[in-house]
Amino acid sequence: MIVVLRLGHRRARDPRVTTHVCLAARALGADAVWVSERDRALEGGVRAAVERFGGPFEVRTGVPWRQAMRDFSGVRVHLTMYGEPIDKRVAAVRRSARGRDIMLVVGGAKVPGDVYGMADFNLAVTNQPHSEVAALAVALDRLTAGAWARKRFKGARVAVRPSARGKDVVRRGDEEE
Amino acid sequence: MIVVLRLGHRRARDPRVTTHVCLAARALGADAVWVSERDRALEGGVRAAVERFGGPFEVRTGVPWRQAMRDFSGVRVHLTMYGEPIDKRVAAVRRSARGRDIMLVVGGAKVPGDVYGMADFNLAVTNQPHSEVAALAVALDRLTAGAWARKRFKGARVAVRPSARGKDVVRRGDEEE
Repeated sequence: MIVVLRLGHRRARDPRVTTHVCLAARALGADAVWVSERDRALEGGVRAAVERFGGPFEVRTGVPWRQAMRDFSGVRVHLTMYGEPIDKRVAAVRRSARGRDIMLVVGGAKVPGDVYGMADFNLAVTNQPHSEVAALAVALDRLTAGAWARKRFKGARVAVRPSARGKDVVRRGDEEE
Repeated sequence: MIVVLRLGHRRARDPRVTTHVCLAARALGADAVWVSERDRALEGGVRAAVERFGGPFEVRTGVPWRQAMRDFSGVRVHLTMYGEPIDKRVAAVRRSARGRDIMLVVGGAKVPGDVYGMADFNLAVTNQPHSEVAALAVALDRLTAGAWARKRFKGARVAVRPSARGKDVVRRGDEEE
């Protein structure tokens, strides 16, 4: 199981970015996202997507993050532009996990300094400033070895069939099964 | 050369998301980002990052996107949740490009329908709703075969040295060269 822990969500400044974190987490192979700040609207939006496109996927907001990190029994991976190159350490993360859960910690602009010490790994998707959404996407890709491409979601009301030109949306019940 | 064309930037609603698109484009191997809407503040922010962390990287806003797509002499790849799986088509994109430039088109919530027809490829990073930032990150990773990990930026005033614990920032002139 992979949990994404999102720190530094600023509802006023960048409400959309955390939504992107949550939906990318779901689409690319995480099982849950925990957001440190309380945000009911965010929760509702993500749950609506899960209901429509399938799950399971858990979203929680207002999560006491230090406690969540401390109590986590698996491997804690903090994504940061200051960390070690992810491609050099991903095998070590997998070895260290050995079937245990993985927590991916992603911050906003400023991350409290103690996160670096609480994490088992501090990993960088490039040592350049960019985006926690992009970093999360690449990290999930590496940790699951691209398994997101084969992921199936359950209980979807709506599914998209791949198409070279345009949109092919299937509503549940329409399918010939 | 890889150009990212960003459609549907909404300054009022999600100013940060386009910044993430631009910075992820730079960090993960694109050479330029063109944004359809005019946004001087966005341009300034991205240029400041380029000046600090190095280039070259071009940012333009207020780009007439239909003309830009039409006049583009390379391969146009539109990233969309409705498209074909990227992992199945990435070799075809590379074959089709054969040394020509690649344009990666990323939209916001709603993309005008004619984009699908103007693109040479409509590709999906999962057929699930998530984030153009995440989709762009994975697409750049696939198109460059992970070359972003070895990318060097020129003229940087500041560089980050990978670290297992904490921050190691080098200012130009500090380095023993």
